Amino acid sequence: MGEIGTKRWNFEENEAVEVSLNVRHFQNLLTENLDGNDSRSVISLGHGDPSPFSSFQTDPAAVEAVADALRSAQFNHYSSSSGILLARKAVAEYLSRDLTSKICENDVYLTAGCHQSIELLISTLAAAVPGANILLPRPTYPFYDARAAFSKLEIRRYDLLPENGWEVDLDAVEALADHKTVAMLLINPCNPCGKVFTRQHLHKIAETASKLGVLVIADEIYKDMSFGEKPFVSMAEFAETVPVMMLGGISKRWFVPGWRFGWIVTLDPHCIMKDSGLVRSLGNVFNMSTDPTTFVQGAIPEILGKTREEFFSTKLEILRECAETCYEEMKKIPCITCPYKPEGSMFTMVKLEVSLLEDISDDLEFCFKLAREESVIILPGQAVGLNNWLRVFFAVDLELLVQGLSRLHNFALRHSKKKMMMKLPISSVSVSE
Amino acid sequence: MGEIGTKRWNFEENEAVEVSLNVRHFQNLLTENLDGNDSRSVISLGHGDPSPFSSFQTDPAAVEAVADALRSAQFNHYSSSSGILLARKAVAEYLSRDLTSKICENDVYLTAGCHQSIELLISTLAAAVPGANILLPRPTYPFYDARAAFSKLEIRRYDLLPENGWEVDLDAVEALADHKTVAMLLINPCNPCGKVFTRQHLHKIAETASKLGVLVIADEIYKDMSFGEKPFVSMAEFAETVPVMMLGGISKRWFVPGWRFGWIVTLDPHCIMKDSGLVRSLGNVFNMSTDPTTFVQGAIPEILGKTREEFFSTKLEILRECAETCYEEMKKIPCITCPYKPEGSMFTMVKLEVSLLEDISDDLEFCFKLAREESVIILPGQAVGLNNWLRVFFAVDLELLVQGLSRLHNFALRHSKKKMMMKLPISSVSVSE
Repeated sequence: MGEIGTKRWNFEENEAVEVSLNVRHFQNLLTENLDGNDSRSVISLGHGDPSPFSSFQTDPAAVEAVADALRSAQFNHYSSSSGILLARKAVAEYLSRDLTSKICENDVYLTAGCHQSIELLISTLAAAVPGANILLPRPTYPFYDARAAFSKLEIRRYDLLPENGWEVDLDAVEALADHKTVAMLLINPCNPCGKVFTRQHLHKIAETASKLGVLVIADEIYKDMSFGEKPFVSMAEFAETVPVMMLGGISKRWFVPGWRFGWIVTLDPHCIMKDSGLVRSLGNVFNMSTDPTTFVQGAIPEILGKTREEFFSTKLEILRECAETCYEEMKKIPCITCPYKPEGSMFTMVKLEVSLLEDISDDLEFCFKLAREESVIILPGQAVGLNNWLRVFFAVDLELLVQGLSRLHNFALRHSKKKMMMKLPISSVSVSE
Repeated sequence: MGEIGTKRWNFEENEAVEVSLNVRHFQNLLTENLDGNDSRSVISLGHGDPSPFSSFQTDPAAVEAVADALRSAQFNHYSSSSGILLARKAVAEYLSRDLTSKICENDVYLTAGCHQSIELLISTLAAAVPGANILLPRPTYPFYDARAAFSKLEIRRYDLLPENGWEVDLDAVEALADHKTVAMLLINPCNPCGKVFTRQHLHKIAETASKLGVLVIADEIYKDMSFGEKPFVSMAEFAETVPVMMLGGISKRWFVPGWRFGWIVTLDPHCIMKDSGLVRSLGNVFNMSTDPTTFVQGAIPEILGKTREEFFSTKLEILRECAETCYEEMKKIPCITCPYKPEGSMFTMVKLEVSLLEDISDDLEFCFKLAREESVIILPGQAVGLNNWLRVFFAVDLELLVQGLSRLHNFALRHSKKKMMMKLPISSVSVSE
């Protein structure tokens, strides 16, 4: 076996699996680009995880619910494939509270977080309908794009229009779809643009999807993170018009993405997805996939049923303040425009006016230099499909957010073409570090 | 939108996703077939989960380690894609203890249980090498078959030979492989046949795989459940000869399949998998997949590093007694032959002599009638690819195991051709319920 290093191995002739759009990838690149000699702490407004910040610690009662389920020794076993009954029931009841129609536990499929909801749904669609295509938004949550590309589900992109307050370009949707278009994705409240869609617009989306014969994937992971004037309305309200696959989880509202608990709910009052065999296919894909931790499932009735309203209202108030601050401070920064005040999720998209910059040619270079010079990490828009925009995550401690935006402001001043600077100088921004 | 029930939806023209071989599927069918009027409790020797039984409760220290990590509030965040560093380090150290060469944490990829290890590895191989095939054993652990079929990785089956103590039919392996064969699977200790492979045989397998240019998937989830005379030897010892993807987890040794924590380790001292790009592809697939619960990862150094040896030795002794009892009682049953005394895992395969049965034509009918008449669930061999065999799970409380085997014995007596009954009558089996 001396020739091991030189012999031919059958797997060597491979086509590397690549991840086209990927938040983690950009986050890693930016982190590697930090200046180790900068004594200031790194401020990350890139990755969407509020759990490390003191303002966004989870409810201690939720922690105790999980500890109790763990210690009971009743939940060390394998889960059943769509999740254990008591947890599915609890999710059905929790979601039904805000809806006109009630959800049944048999329509609930539990997952190891909303990422797995996306994985399993996309791979089901790709496997069940060979040659299918899917309509994804631009800007996007790139995990969808990565999974669709991996499953060889063709991606067609429709625009969210910043000039129309990020509403869906429904004409484009109609023009893009054909008879192989199986689904369109709507993330509401929207990551990355902070939009909360109106009831009227949701109705139009549902009617368009129905007309085209496509189901709607309603990613409502941020459903309780709506803090603007418009109330959040679930796509579930339009299930009479169009079949809906609703995605969600506890990661955001309880600030525990590491607990890995989410769901898919089929909203199918006319049994269209069921009769077509799609629901059966989804069940079979669940049957050959890993499950959420059983004792976390065991704690779900307690977590969903008994978290105090005060916990939610307090956190939402903090989030509103972060969003407000982010918007107001961003508006002051030269070379950045803010077309939309965020009303939900934990993100906003702001536009980079590259023509106002001296020595920076695009969003990627902007973010790399920002990381290097200011130890601030912000995601370049191209990571979410929109060149020369920035995706800003604002669910961090307010003081840190203000510091980060101040560094960004300084950075922008430093790199702006001098004669074109129109906005306020940094001295007028009341910020100190 | 009144026409919703009759209109055409694009996803309706779909090819249902089916799961060919599937333990859960058969388990469900058998459970549905139970007689609700039978007042005796159901005894399941079907599904491989010892955690509900009092003999196989996990170590309280492991429970406290998870509770501590949960309560620390340090592990509510998203995991990094191959797992958090302290957990990868702990797994590398734990596995290195028994090996000649040391494992590095960078070669460890953490998963939400060994099922996810299989999912991610199979989908990486399928995506990286289009048109590839894989060699799977017969009898098999059918999760591999289901995932390979789903990923369109062609399955070729080699036999484990009961007449040779379930050794691999290496001639068949050579005959089956071609230049598109990327991997062969070896489960050691073996689910379903209870085999522990010798060092000599492992060496031959490694040399054969190397000659054929295929990597070895070494599923060692039962690595510490070896209770016969032969010591367990890891395929890692042959990584100089052939590149190995080693799979494992805590589900079996700690009896906590519901905690969902496993791993893949790349054993690649000559950088063959690395240089070929396969390791990079695996990393990218991890990058777009869900992660194990972060606080379970946080508890791993404590669990792997500090569980008392006594916990393991006590449980292994109970398991040995179960295996012994299962083998001895099975041997007494007419129409069943036991070619091999189990030495590892939690399973054994026994042969059904259908010609000795009066009114039962195959293993499936045998198991259905057994469930119906005796409230005992045993998996038919065809669920693991071997017709007219039975897969028996023996890691249940001993008293329950004895009761289950006694019912099985009665059942077999009742359905055997009367004149051909050669074995002992049931009265000589000292069993009472």
